[in-house]
Amino acid sequence: MTTQLVRTIAQARSRVLDARHAGFTTGLVPTMGDLHAGHGALIERARRQTDFVVVSVFVNPIQFDRASDYEKYARDVQRDVEFCTAHGVDLVFAPDPAEMYPTPSQTLVEVSGVSEHLCGEFRPGHFRGVATVLAKLFHILPADRAYFGEKDGQQLAVVRRMVADLNFPVTIVAVPTVRDADGLALSSRNQRLTPEQRAIAPRLYQALSAVSGKIAEGCKDAAEAKEAGLAILRQEPLIRVEYFEIVGAADMQPCNPVEGRVAIAAAIWLGETRLIDNILTAAQPS
Amino acid sequence: MTTQLVRTIAQARSRVLDARHAGFTTGLVPTMGDLHAGHGALIERARRQTDFVVVSVFVNPIQFDRASDYEKYARDVQRDVEFCTAHGVDLVFAPDPAEMYPTPSQTLVEVSGVSEHLCGEFRPGHFRGVATVLAKLFHILPADRAYFGEKDGQQLAVVRRMVADLNFPVTIVAVPTVRDADGLALSSRNQRLTPEQRAIAPRLYQALSAVSGKIAEGCKDAAEAKEAGLAILRQEPLIRVEYFEIVGAADMQPCNPVEGRVAIAAAIWLGETRLIDNILTAAQPS
Repeated sequence: MTTQLVRTIAQARSRVLDARHAGFTTGLVPTMGDLHAGHGALIERARRQTDFVVVSVFVNPIQFDRASDYEKYARDVQRDVEFCTAHGVDLVFAPDPAEMYPTPSQTLVEVSGVSEHLCGEFRPGHFRGVATVLAKLFHILPADRAYFGEKDGQQLAVVRRMVADLNFPVTIVAVPTVRDADGLALSSRNQRLTPEQRAIAPRLYQALSAVSGKIAEGCKDAAEAKEAGLAILRQEPLIRVEYFEIVGAADMQPCNPVEGRVAIAAAIWLGETRLIDNILTAAQPS
Repeated sequence: MTTQLVRTIAQARSRVLDARHAGFTTGLVPTMGDLHAGHGALIERARRQTDFVVVSVFVNPIQFDRASDYEKYARDVQRDVEFCTAHGVDLVFAPDPAEMYPTPSQTLVEVSGVSEHLCGEFRPGHFRGVATVLAKLFHILPADRAYFGEKDGQQLAVVRRMVADLNFPVTIVAVPTVRDADGLALSSRNQRLTPEQRAIAPRLYQALSAVSGKIAEGCKDAAEAKEAGLAILRQEPLIRVEYFEIVGAADMQPCNPVEGRVAIAAAIWLGETRLIDNILTAAQPS
């Protein structure tokens, strides 16, 4: 089977509706392309749970807070289609920016609360751009289930909140983060790292794991638990920490004492490259 | 045939999906209840164009800028269901506020541009509340077509903009304003007028018509055209003009000189009651 590639909204919608009318359940994997094994895990889950799997490939300009990051983002649709074919995807929707935004969108979807800390604090407008493009994609590609990686944990919380608040008829499925053998979470941005930066990038996951370990030992003090991770990052002068927080897993609000289901989430810079990661865990019962 | 009344989102969605699966096209008439002949015209159009007609009856708290207006809004679902039965509606969805907003919505849909002037200027947050509840209703009650009155002209422009920007799979149908014999546009709020206020309320339509007449005569100067209407309103000391504008019919931006398709739109106060109305017309070719 070859994956079909469509470029227009009309074609994409018509293919998905045909599948639905034929009685197929539909699964959507929204991506910005440059597909890797992390996306592969989302696609595999979608294939197991739905009959007709759609991957959208769209580098969404309105979610980038820095123009340079938008421009540097790798784009190779042909390679992505080959990846999708190898993974048994039925349809790839890869629109041009002008197809998605024929005029600048006057309509924006704002999700407050879950989007205010972590990346929301450091990337103004980012989650508004994410929520807006996902609202569009959910309408263009009506899916029974949509698949998101836990690596982008706050994005997952934002989309869950949006879907619940606006009653989107789609089930959001979270898929665990895929990591390299040394723990580094897969990300399109990893390929921008120099060999030296790549060598120390796994410190991020080690730091998050150290905090998770402290919480597993029963530590409830957020500052104390975080210090176990920050101490690791501090040993690497090439790493600049943007944020390092323990937040509620659903509401993404900093929590202290550490209670319930939490995410330990961080963003670091290695040179000009920004990496994010998080670990989900549960505090010990009091 | 009796109109079926449902109160929950799950029941409403399931009824509409059943109709769609049976091959019926679906039409949605979103209302705040207190149904009158204006709503009747929307329903009639929906019945002519679609197989299964749904009326939503929900006084949406988040679109009211004044608590007193929200509280005063007439609510009588039983009467509305009788009205719908008489008009051949298939389904009424009348949820409680707690069904629509189990928690305060963290997600809000902002439509800029078209929403900034006219009512948008005087009712902060109003169109955000309208857009947000319509996004919810479009998801809960998937419709091929949704029907809106031209009387709420800016609301119509906002919903058209939102549907286009976010690719909602629904066609928006505009239905001409229904008026009493003396020209007053039908509105639930008319019944709050005292007999004295009701007697002069038609001045609003007369004023808009006077401007429309000036434009038909070829007047391109917005201030001069508006003056023909404002002069009429100024004769009534009980009328307080909130705004009185000539705007582009699609973008709702004040236009001067008067060109293309325009809306002459006004809001006035009679005591504690606010009335809006508008006339759509086209400027003479230059």
